Amino acid sequence: MSEQLGIKAKKLENFSEWFSEVCQKAGLVDLRYNVQGFVVHKPWAMRVIKKIYELLEKELEAKGHEPVLFPVVIPEENLEKEKEHVEGFKPEVFWITQAGDNPLEKKLALRPTSETAFYQMYSLWIRSWRDLPLKLYQSVAVYRYESTTKPFLRGREFLWIESHDAFETHEEALKQTREDMEVCKKVVWEKLGVPFLFFRRPKWDKFAGALDTYAADTIMPDGKVNQISSTHDLGQNFAKAFNIKFLSREGKKEYVWQTCFGPGVWRIMAALISVHGDDKGLILPFEVAPIQVILIPIIFSDEDVEKIKEKCDYVEKLLKEKGIRCKTDWREETPGWKFNDWELKGVPLRIEIGPREAMEGYVTITRRDTGERVQVKDDKLIEEIEKLGEDILKNLKKRAKKFFEERIVEVSTKEFLIKVIKEGKVAKINFCGREECAMEIKEATNGGKVRGVVVDSKEKPTGKCAWCGREAKEVVYVAKAY
Amino acid sequence: MSEQLGIKAKKLENFSEWFSEVCQKAGLVDLRYNVQGFVVHKPWAMRVIKKIYELLEKELEAKGHEPVLFPVVIPEENLEKEKEHVEGFKPEVFWITQAGDNPLEKKLALRPTSETAFYQMYSLWIRSWRDLPLKLYQSVAVYRYESTTKPFLRGREFLWIESHDAFETHEEALKQTREDMEVCKKVVWEKLGVPFLFFRRPKWDKFAGALDTYAADTIMPDGKVNQISSTHDLGQNFAKAFNIKFLSREGKKEYVWQTCFGPGVWRIMAALISVHGDDKGLILPFEVAPIQVILIPIIFSDEDVEKIKEKCDYVEKLLKEKGIRCKTDWREETPGWKFNDWELKGVPLRIEIGPREAMEGYVTITRRDTGERVQVKDDKLIEEIEKLGEDILKNLKKRAKKFFEERIVEVSTKEFLIKVIKEGKVAKINFCGREECAMEIKEATNGGKVRGVVVDSKEKPTGKCAWCGREAKEVVYVAKAY
Repeated sequence: MSEQLGIKAKKLENFSEWFSEVCQKAGLVDLRYNVQGFVVHKPWAMRVIKKIYELLEKELEAKGHEPVLFPVVIPEENLEKEKEHVEGFKPEVFWITQAGDNPLEKKLALRPTSETAFYQMYSLWIRSWRDLPLKLYQSVAVYRYESTTKPFLRGREFLWIESHDAFETHEEALKQTREDMEVCKKVVWEKLGVPFLFFRRPKWDKFAGALDTYAADTIMPDGKVNQISSTHDLGQNFAKAFNIKFLSREGKKEYVWQTCFGPGVWRIMAALISVHGDDKGLILPFEVAPIQVILIPIIFSDEDVEKIKEKCDYVEKLLKEKGIRCKTDWREETPGWKFNDWELKGVPLRIEIGPREAMEGYVTITRRDTGERVQVKDDKLIEEIEKLGEDILKNLKKRAKKFFEERIVEVSTKEFLIKVIKEGKVAKINFCGREECAMEIKEATNGGKVRGVVVDSKEKPTGKCAWCGREAKEVVYVAKAY
Repeated sequence: MSEQLGIKAKKLENFSEWFSEVCQKAGLVDLRYNVQGFVVHKPWAMRVIKKIYELLEKELEAKGHEPVLFPVVIPEENLEKEKEHVEGFKPEVFWITQAGDNPLEKKLALRPTSETAFYQMYSLWIRSWRDLPLKLYQSVAVYRYESTTKPFLRGREFLWIESHDAFETHEEALKQTREDMEVCKKVVWEKLGVPFLFFRRPKWDKFAGALDTYAADTIMPDGKVNQISSTHDLGQNFAKAFNIKFLSREGKKEYVWQTCFGPGVWRIMAALISVHGDDKGLILPFEVAPIQVILIPIIFSDEDVEKIKEKCDYVEKLLKEKGIRCKTDWREETPGWKFNDWELKGVPLRIEIGPREAMEGYVTITRRDTGERVQVKDDKLIEEIEKLGEDILKNLKKRAKKFFEERIVEVSTKEFLIKVIKEGKVAKINFCGREECAMEIKEATNGGKVRGVVVDSKEKPTGKCAWCGREAKEVVYVAKAY
């Protein structure tokens, strides 16, 4: 119990070490599982992750998606149907080749993503325009043989949702990509308070098999961006590869237009930890906190135990009746130790109950995000907690947005671009749009990548490309990325 | 759209065919995925399955379990740590041997069950009696190379929950197995209305590595039993294999006592379909139905369309405000076709809204389980629907219990035992307790298996073993099993 609490690293000075410490000390993951790149998700992480899944699934269902579950195995022949897709994914596929003592007749891929599983069924399910739109999602893990791994950011097993939609027209498909962005906004920004921008990725950085990729980047404390979601305009590429045709309203056989959307639950979790956390540990928004209010009994003398217990039970019952997730910490540790432990775990509100609180009909509430303390009368408690829950989210959003905006710097020279990326910032530049230029930037900035043009942005390029001096065609953002 | 609706097979005459038809026609699974034994779960099934998971998780958490997620891959070395366990599972393991183009250094099993993944971490996590009890669960699919497969009953990928608990004493572990039975009862019987009995399995039929296995059997329409859950007293077998020791209250290093519990979500789904369904299709209990109330507009004349639409919208809004899952079916089909379609899908209540209902402030509700129709005034609607929801469950439970009890026959001779099993019933016999005798029964009855003694049963054997004539030691049930 009395293990070393507290994070030693500072978030803004040594983010990587801070992140590792939080993952371990807040009880999120255990990295000691004996297969490289596969982590054990501990209860505190799983409880937050389940909430994130719930929020995303609710929004997807509100937009007409239905849940399905496709097999974890995909035959090699399916993967090979779409040429760009297989080239993109095959090097990272885990292969099942054996069952019991027997070799399998055909090798099976552990799903790296499920286009090639879904779309062969879509070719059976879709017959007429009446079957469209078809909008399905699954909440699963996917598997990729990554060389370097980091919990919630890059793993050989990572958690996401994938939705796969099919439409009559390209226009509807494009509209769907906008709706996917909306779902992301509703959950990641509005509920979790994590700011991001959606970019149209450059052609050389799109999803293997897509016409266009739109991806959301948030900015991590070290200035590297974290792609938390992506939605792809697949055009008719997969429809042709998998022969997904429908009888149109005009009575013609046509290929469907498809999109797929992957909200990265793991990546969103990484953002949630990193964007809101501070040097004491996690700070969880009220809505996804496994415990929203922790009650700490403050006992000075044995005489008070009974009264304090009574008050704790009373408050716990009161909160639970209102559906607030709370718990009283009766462990045999000092109040100070408990404060640290629950701060580390990011519980949004702490209520201390000592002899005075037990007698005098009020409690003392402390906010995790600001450390502010308020005394609240018992009969105003629920009201105050609900208000504080909202205030915490507001404050986290404000802080996060400020950081996000401050980290983006407009740059118009080579030298300044290199400097800005080196300093852990995101550069906004006028850009010529050429892949060669992007590759030069990556080389010179030691990994700074052109993330693309902000979707629906009104930013117009003025003048020359910040790198090559050719005429600028667009405004893009450059950043190192996880 | 106008595909052939309606089930052709009769449930009690040709259960196997009936089950296949329901799975296909109610839109539960698609068997055409191109890997044998792996099915695609369609939305109607997934929506029910998600509800079953929710109910089970809620009960498990109420009993102090917390969610975790362990990797899907288990190294061969882990599987081999417990001798009986590896012998039981290794023949059915899928092996990952390759990633990209490279062979893996160590073969990885696709989890067939997760004892050997969890328990190596338990040996790191458990130090003292203060860390106990440790009660964790995960909601996942498991993978076994089964030779014959049937949706929801036997598959190469099947859905379940597995909980893994560790205790200071054997007594606590045994108490946990009883608590697991309680969880099963709370969900499977109380919420889903599926009756079952928990048996202590014979020693030759226990979980590989356990001291004792307690498993719940329900009876399917063809008289074969379906094991829907099992909980295992693992003793200290795995603790010794994985070196899971704790410092006891007396200051001694001791091995923990363990249990594991597997509520078979797939198997529960099979039971739900089969026990309650009838010759028209599924009948879903109110609590797990994806749509609880379907509204069908009945339009005789174009003049009525607007009024009827208005009333449908009014009712839909009214129900949704109360959290009732409902939908209006506006498809371009006849009301009769729609009735059949939603009966097939098992929607508990149907509301018809025609010109009279639109004008006169009432609706007509039809129950799926009994076909009874009632007219209900708009202002009594919510109340009536809630009552009907409960009544449906009561009725399903009553029916199911009657069938369950009628299918069990007390038998005291060889001939009658053979006859009873052949007729698709479950036999209750006095039994000598010997494995040889059980094997003879299995042979003679073409698969009838001794399922064990009912847990906490007061049934005492009287006289001789129904098969071999030796002195009877226990009362057991014999049945064919899925």
